[in-house]
Amino acid sequence: MNRDPADRASPLVTDYYAFTMLITYLETGRTGTAVFEFFVRPPLPASRRFFVAAGLGEAVDDLLALETRGDERAWLAGEGLLASKPVRDYIEELRFTGDIDAVPEGTVVFPDEPLLRVRAPLPLAQLVEARLINSLHYPTLIASKAARMVLAARAGTTLVDFGLRRAPGTEAGLMLARASYIAGFDGTATVPAGRRYGIPLYGTMAHSFVLAYPNEEEAFLAYARTHREDVTLLIDTYEERDAAHTVGRLYARLAHEGIPLQAVRLDSGDLAARARDVRTILDAHGAKSVRIFASGGIDEHTIADHVRRKAPIDGYGIGTLLANSSDVPYLNCAYKLVAYDNQPRRKFSTGKTTRPGAKQVFRTHDARGRMKEDVIGLEGEDIPGEPLLVPVVRRGERLTPEEPLEHIRERVRTGLAALPDELREIDDTPSPRPYPVRTSRGLAALTDSLTPPSPSAPRVVPP
Amino acid sequence: MNRDPADRASPLVTDYYAFTMLITYLETGRTGTAVFEFFVRPPLPASRRFFVAAGLGEAVDDLLALETRGDERAWLAGEGLLASKPVRDYIEELRFTGDIDAVPEGTVVFPDEPLLRVRAPLPLAQLVEARLINSLHYPTLIASKAARMVLAARAGTTLVDFGLRRAPGTEAGLMLARASYIAGFDGTATVPAGRRYGIPLYGTMAHSFVLAYPNEEEAFLAYARTHREDVTLLIDTYEERDAAHTVGRLYARLAHEGIPLQAVRLDSGDLAARARDVRTILDAHGAKSVRIFASGGIDEHTIADHVRRKAPIDGYGIGTLLANSSDVPYLNCAYKLVAYDNQPRRKFSTGKTTRPGAKQVFRTHDARGRMKEDVIGLEGEDIPGEPLLVPVVRRGERLTPEEPLEHIRERVRTGLAALPDELREIDDTPSPRPYPVRTSRGLAALTDSLTPPSPSAPRVVPP
Repeated sequence: MNRDPADRASPLVTDYYAFTMLITYLETGRTGTAVFEFFVRPPLPASRRFFVAAGLGEAVDDLLALETRGDERAWLAGEGLLASKPVRDYIEELRFTGDIDAVPEGTVVFPDEPLLRVRAPLPLAQLVEARLINSLHYPTLIASKAARMVLAARAGTTLVDFGLRRAPGTEAGLMLARASYIAGFDGTATVPAGRRYGIPLYGTMAHSFVLAYPNEEEAFLAYARTHREDVTLLIDTYEERDAAHTVGRLYARLAHEGIPLQAVRLDSGDLAARARDVRTILDAHGAKSVRIFASGGIDEHTIADHVRRKAPIDGYGIGTLLANSSDVPYLNCAYKLVAYDNQPRRKFSTGKTTRPGAKQVFRTHDARGRMKEDVIGLEGEDIPGEPLLVPVVRRGERLTPEEPLEHIRERVRTGLAALPDELREIDDTPSPRPYPVRTSRGLAALTDSLTPPSPSAPRVVPP
Repeated sequence: MNRDPADRASPLVTDYYAFTMLITYLETGRTGTAVFEFFVRPPLPASRRFFVAAGLGEAVDDLLALETRGDERAWLAGEGLLASKPVRDYIEELRFTGDIDAVPEGTVVFPDEPLLRVRAPLPLAQLVEARLINSLHYPTLIASKAARMVLAARAGTTLVDFGLRRAPGTEAGLMLARASYIAGFDGTATVPAGRRYGIPLYGTMAHSFVLAYPNEEEAFLAYARTHREDVTLLIDTYEERDAAHTVGRLYARLAHEGIPLQAVRLDSGDLAARARDVRTILDAHGAKSVRIFASGGIDEHTIADHVRRKAPIDGYGIGTLLANSSDVPYLNCAYKLVAYDNQPRRKFSTGKTTRPGAKQVFRTHDARGRMKEDVIGLEGEDIPGEPLLVPVVRRGERLTPEEPLEHIRERVRTGLAALPDELREIDDTPSPRPYPVRTSRGLAALTDSLTPPSPSAPRVVPP
């Protein structure tokens, strides 16, 4: 069966130049071992004080599933990309046979730190460039944004991803649900994410639901009586205080029928002020156990504002501003060659120089368990601290199975708790005391030792 | 075979509440005909003067492919969502049986204008809400951004999508390639987009390619001799003027071998200044036919700046700032119930009121063919102008096959040419003369005639 062109198990999921370079590599014998590293370029965006690494589990699964199918080879041949036998054979036998070391998902990380390292024959390591950046970029972007929302919310607040509709594609909707869940969200509205990842699903009703009944009372009763155990009522289709009175009145009546109303949802206006009004009305009706859920334009600043104002809001549905990481819509990340054939490599492009050699990040904590300093050094360099990159794949085989999401969630929880206080602030300004990320002497010396090869052409113009 | 949960032919690609509402609709007999409309809420973002509608072709394909498979029904049953027989039967027989009217892809559109209308039984029309928004949002976002780049560039400039790596997922990478191509781009680097859509593929080499050879000359020769007909050389791995001399020197030598060097690419620094230096060097070597291609942080403002500075740049590779529509990372779009059971419907939520009734957009042009005014009226209202929404699907059948991308491209070309001059400006400020979008008398009267139902509960608290 033909495979969907967007299926990440297809090696075609890459940039065209990966194939044109592959041809030259194979035809000129450049098949030695290459080391590439994925990292985010500095500086931290003004409104981020750290990132949360995410996407690794699925990125590795997809790499290890790589193989070309017959229809794909036929297509590549039709494009003229399989003209030579070495290339045909290579593509036919293509598997991911390399090594991967990476920072575990859910780790708090910083710019310049390598988050993933591939050691593989050059044509292979190059072929997977675009897919690896793609697999790691959006999840890391989203987990980093979602972690700020988790930090902003009071403990016990329910945070739910409502982002599918405004996410950039369905696949992004699933990546979003997964990344926000590992960052500490409680669940998602995205049904296929519930199915694929086992993330708890949340959902209530739309305004259209209320509009399809003659009035709110009929809509609310219809919903409550057909769901019974899990009833959240949307109360701002018309006037939310009227609706709160309706809910308050129905509360006892439905309790009598054995139906415990669980929550109401507000989706518009000044959510904190409205929540307070609604709380007062519900409490006066004796519906103190009914929780208040808010949605509509929520981000970490909305949540922090509600916390400051002591708004009686028990949970949030968060969509657009998370799904598009609207204040920082992308990370300046890259996947760069750092060594070829055991020789460190370095590019010198203006503003985009790289640092050579396979690297490691060494993290130290203080006596209370708070993060103290990271040092970026060379792999194998003798530096105190916990090495962040760990072996994940050797010769195309996973060393350990993919981590359960609950483990990754726990790592985020621990990591956020270990952040220095000023890094936990969600102000949209750089930290007054940015987290120290130093360069080791070994890495600095290696970097300085590399200079561009002397130009092969004299800088003169022929007569 | 189990289907990938993100596959859009699966009805599971939606929000959880679509299923909870569906249960209530079926169990309480709310299965009358509903009309929903998709639109972008006003105002236009400050840096947009119009949108380009996109995503319709694939959105409709996906809707018409909807059906549940056995494994999906089993999963839904396990979630407790198929407890009643009417729901089980409904899900088993689920197909898209409704009508769709929509603005053709590639049409220039404005906030508040319905871009798509679904007329279908309420449970079905509701079920597809999240997927339809998801299918139309990102393509429209990207086509609208890409059109600004097309407007900024000189005629004849080659624009290529380089965005896969920083796109939010692989599927987004494909949507991006398609949306930018219909907006007027010349091609993409995204291989699966070439395969799926037949979009021309472009690609050159990475810095890592150059770094894997002892020096630039060897790298350039290796690439040129293995590709011959299509050779673009990346010249900023070390020092781009040195590299330009190398290219200049190789130009004649390779021509002698029957290899015409086609282009060089710059990816860093002040691209306009460097392009000028490189042009001078190449011309001095007699390599006047070698084109200069630029990439790295390109958006419409970079292009406009280069045009103002008369930079000798013949083409651009555009990635991150397009893939994430970085200045406007989302559109405030919605899919709202406007009629149920032949009754117009309207929500009154603060700041998010809707306008009732099935609508049409009537566009008039002036004598020179320039767009003059849009009127949003009621479907069937007698208003001068070209109606923008056209019938696409009736009773679950496409009226016409999906449009070829070339037709859609042509529509964009025509539409951009018909824009009033001030709407073609890419300043990041609202137009001094925003395009007039009026509301018809019929729509205004209908909107005013609807008031919320009287609250079903008295606004008093029981003693």
